[in-house]
Amino acid sequence: MKHQQSPQLAVLQGRAMQQGLWGLLRHRIYNLQLLRMDATAALIVSLLLIPQSLAYALLAGLPLQAGLYASILPAIAYAFFGTSGVLAVGPVAITSLLTFSALSPLATPGSDEYVLLAILLALMSGLCLLLMGVLRMGFLTNFLSHPVMSAFVSASAVIILLSQLKGVTGIPVQSGTLPEMLYSLYSGWQQLHLETLLLGLACILFLYWARHYLAGLLQRFGMKPDLATLMGRMAPLLLLVLTTLLVVMTRLDQQGIKIVGALSLGLPTLQWQMITPGVLLSLVPMAVMISLIGFAESVAIARTFAARRRQQVNSNRELLGLGIANLAAGASGSFPVTGGLSRTVVNHDAGSVTPMASLLTGMGMALVLLFFTGWLYYLPQAMLASVILVAVLSLVDWKQPLHLWRYSRGDAWAWLATASGVLLLGIEIGLLLGVLVSLGSWLAKNSKPHVAIVGRVPGTEHYRNVQRYQVELHPSILSLRIDESLMFANAQEVEERVLQEVSQHPEVRHVILMGSGINHIDASGVEVLEQLNQLLKEQGIGLHLSEIKGPVLDRLKLINLPEHLNGQIFLTQHQAMQALTRVDEKA
Amino acid sequence: MKHQQSPQLAVLQGRAMQQGLWGLLRHRIYNLQLLRMDATAALIVSLLLIPQSLAYALLAGLPLQAGLYASILPAIAYAFFGTSGVLAVGPVAITSLLTFSALSPLATPGSDEYVLLAILLALMSGLCLLLMGVLRMGFLTNFLSHPVMSAFVSASAVIILLSQLKGVTGIPVQSGTLPEMLYSLYSGWQQLHLETLLLGLACILFLYWARHYLAGLLQRFGMKPDLATLMGRMAPLLLLVLTTLLVVMTRLDQQGIKIVGALSLGLPTLQWQMITPGVLLSLVPMAVMISLIGFAESVAIARTFAARRRQQVNSNRELLGLGIANLAAGASGSFPVTGGLSRTVVNHDAGSVTPMASLLTGMGMALVLLFFTGWLYYLPQAMLASVILVAVLSLVDWKQPLHLWRYSRGDAWAWLATASGVLLLGIEIGLLLGVLVSLGSWLAKNSKPHVAIVGRVPGTEHYRNVQRYQVELHPSILSLRIDESLMFANAQEVEERVLQEVSQHPEVRHVILMGSGINHIDASGVEVLEQLNQLLKEQGIGLHLSEIKGPVLDRLKLINLPEHLNGQIFLTQHQAMQALTRVDEKA
Repeated sequence: MKHQQSPQLAVLQGRAMQQGLWGLLRHRIYNLQLLRMDATAALIVSLLLIPQSLAYALLAGLPLQAGLYASILPAIAYAFFGTSGVLAVGPVAITSLLTFSALSPLATPGSDEYVLLAILLALMSGLCLLLMGVLRMGFLTNFLSHPVMSAFVSASAVIILLSQLKGVTGIPVQSGTLPEMLYSLYSGWQQLHLETLLLGLACILFLYWARHYLAGLLQRFGMKPDLATLMGRMAPLLLLVLTTLLVVMTRLDQQGIKIVGALSLGLPTLQWQMITPGVLLSLVPMAVMISLIGFAESVAIARTFAARRRQQVNSNRELLGLGIANLAAGASGSFPVTGGLSRTVVNHDAGSVTPMASLLTGMGMALVLLFFTGWLYYLPQAMLASVILVAVLSLVDWKQPLHLWRYSRGDAWAWLATASGVLLLGIEIGLLLGVLVSLGSWLAKNSKPHVAIVGRVPGTEHYRNVQRYQVELHPSILSLRIDESLMFANAQEVEERVLQEVSQHPEVRHVILMGSGINHIDASGVEVLEQLNQLLKEQGIGLHLSEIKGPVLDRLKLINLPEHLNGQIFLTQHQAMQALTRVDEKA
Repeated sequence: MKHQQSPQLAVLQGRAMQQGLWGLLRHRIYNLQLLRMDATAALIVSLLLIPQSLAYALLAGLPLQAGLYASILPAIAYAFFGTSGVLAVGPVAITSLLTFSALSPLATPGSDEYVLLAILLALMSGLCLLLMGVLRMGFLTNFLSHPVMSAFVSASAVIILLSQLKGVTGIPVQSGTLPEMLYSLYSGWQQLHLETLLLGLACILFLYWARHYLAGLLQRFGMKPDLATLMGRMAPLLLLVLTTLLVVMTRLDQQGIKIVGALSLGLPTLQWQMITPGVLLSLVPMAVMISLIGFAESVAIARTFAARRRQQVNSNRELLGLGIANLAAGASGSFPVTGGLSRTVVNHDAGSVTPMASLLTGMGMALVLLFFTGWLYYLPQAMLASVILVAVLSLVDWKQPLHLWRYSRGDAWAWLATASGVLLLGIEIGLLLGVLVSLGSWLAKNSKPHVAIVGRVPGTEHYRNVQRYQVELHPSILSLRIDESLMFANAQEVEERVLQEVSQHPEVRHVILMGSGINHIDASGVEVLEQLNQLLKEQGIGLHLSEIKGPVLDRLKLINLPEHLNGQIFLTQHQAMQALTRVDEKA
């Protein structure tokens, strides 16, 4: 939406944004001006991707070049098959952590076996995403409730932070649960490497400063705000250059500072014979988890940006795009990828218009891989670790549980269960625990329905809760508003409440259930209605319904409930009261 | 409620019904007239219990006297601690089957080890029920949805039917899944015992005839309808007498007809050393399941009868009552018990007024045990099997899935999953499967929220779905009614729907979400509201809410949502439209 140069371009841009890459090529909408905008965005994203992709490969436990591989074919594949014109697909922090946590128990990180397993994991995630797309199972990610995802991201960020302390301290931090990591940090403190620590701290401080103040500084020097923000985001690239030069000039690598060294391009010798059914099976749950979480994150980002551009995201097409991107990641000897937030923000801010930007980014990274990897030889690993540290620090959100606690205990428990599960029991168990607590707390909420006796607000046709309003009641008519769908978890509760109110009002001759809050009635709910109908009939009491929603009533008619109801169904509560009081007065 | 003799008695009866046994004794309400009524009911129930209790012991795989034990102390204990004045607690078909299915893999039915395990199971069920009562976990049975319970009972009845074919044919039917049972019936057909078959068929025909026609016949002979119905229900006792006499006179037992023989009173030598932690642990899941299902059945019966008497049932007190009844069952060397439907119906029809009837029934069964077991020596086992067969035949309800299918596919799937699970995979797996399908189908329903564009019904203050009614719309205002609570399973769907409608109406400047169907908003729902608020704000569109329910709004205020909403919250949809069209006209 920015950098609009002419009205004609704006219109063209609008049309181009609605199209996928195929559409652009087919409809010949694309022109040089749009290409210039997409190419600029692609250049900036590629430059940002150099340090990021290496850092995420490090986090995933893979040889650094795998990070570059993961940024080429997947981005190109997504350009062709995805639906978002702005989503930047490639290695991201959470899926890298999930990859590490899946594979490190099975093989030594960095080894040829490990690379092979990572490839398998990417391929399986790709298949899993495609399958979800074909079966229209995208809705499954809906079960990752907001508290669960929030807690998962925060707790994962803590795990990542601790794991990357190795890079900026030299202390070998054991991967595992929080207590295990803390213990290994404590017991290995003698291996603290002072030079690494100093370099790491300097990098972190620079990145932190740049993230918060660089853009402001550049603006004060007269740069346009948009450009200044974008330049501020490029700080990791600047740091990459600076630290590489520092190492080259001072030969810090001879002081024990670890450097990237020569990247061995090409795939390692893959020992395909180690792929046994057992290994494949053991990867399935992790592949499913990476697919679900990667997709959930990615589609949320795509949706946010689509809304800003007044566009739509098609979940099932997204599954296809991400699925093929992961197959491409596997095919190019890399690890699972998904859409990343920070790069998407940069892509958007840098003015990308169409998926062409993603295609060009992939091609840019191919150029880096072909011609510039030699330049990375002296890059200190501490710099990469600091990139990860600063990136994930912003993901930790400890205020969330307090915020949730104030709003809803159930959601807060889901957050706590997920976070403590991930930190203390492991990532998978934590996530599962969170989903179960979410489900449980939702059902618990559903199982305690709010049932209010309602009366008429004097002089109006409105009927309100007697406990909140001054209302008129009729002695022989009991009106109960049920603020919940009738379903198995609450049907008996509703029956008990209704019977209780009836037994406390022995003079009642008509019961009206007001259904303005009933969105569904399941078979257990129907059973309870029929039971109530029967029991009240035996006592000579009529059971009436009012304000039942159209779709709910349609369904009740399917089983002829209205016909054997010992009472009537009224469109509104007021009509019910009028009809029944009239009958009552005649009697 | 029946047999009312005088107004004073009716009043006394009403007061007595409201009291537990302790209350009766404390308040000295009880008198001889009430005692006569309770004693009559107790006598009739005891007579019915003789064949029933023996039959259910047979079904549970226990020595027959265990059925008598299960009818004494548990009934007395429930009289003191339960809340229902009419519920008849003792051995019932479903818990007997569950007992058999839990224990038959662990020991030989009828053996001393088996008896010991049954005792343990009863004690553990008792503890489990008490624990559920203390922790107020009675709501757990709500998760056994109506389709699941219905399918479970029907499928269990089929399993029971097949298992009891042994008693009326002599063919040894292997216990297990449906295919296993059918196969063993097929492969064992040479062992068909003709005399047993003839006797069994005669018993079944007699019971079936008595159940449907005896009462009518007695009425035609001048008996009062109530009494005739009651006598009709006593047919099993009559059959017991007739078949015993038949065996005594014709010595059919020498033709290979199996008879009950001598009941060995007293407990077998209990080998307590065989109780290992492993055995205890393996019984836990079954004890939990028996508790849940027994409680669910029992409380449903108690509730139905309480409603007929305009009384209340307290779920947590019921858990206490049934828990102690099961402890009593264990202590008297018997197996798990619960409230049974057929006996409760008889108890009610026979005029029981207070829990005293249950106490007297227990005492009556003690007399039977002490003085009359010798009379049962020649009772043919085929008669007992036929009692079970006819009783459970009425539990099979194959029309239910068709009925459900018409009303709700999700519920029909839950039924089919439970029934086929129980029949093909085993009772526990079937039940678990059913609960999962119930939950899944409910969430699936929740995850596809009904969102309608609403407009004003001309000339009124009513706003209705544009697709169902002729309504007026305003070009710059989009009103969406969301007929679902906002929760994690549908929050993103709602966001997508709202954004989709907005992107299809580019002229819209205000969006009103009408919340008459929103009963809850969980944290994921709040997140989506905030996200929508932000995205619409960026596009210069106001987000307003109308008809938000009191409790929902209270909660939103806790997190100050109304303050940072880019729009207003209106009490009614009409107020919202009036305010916004006014603003719009001014602008």
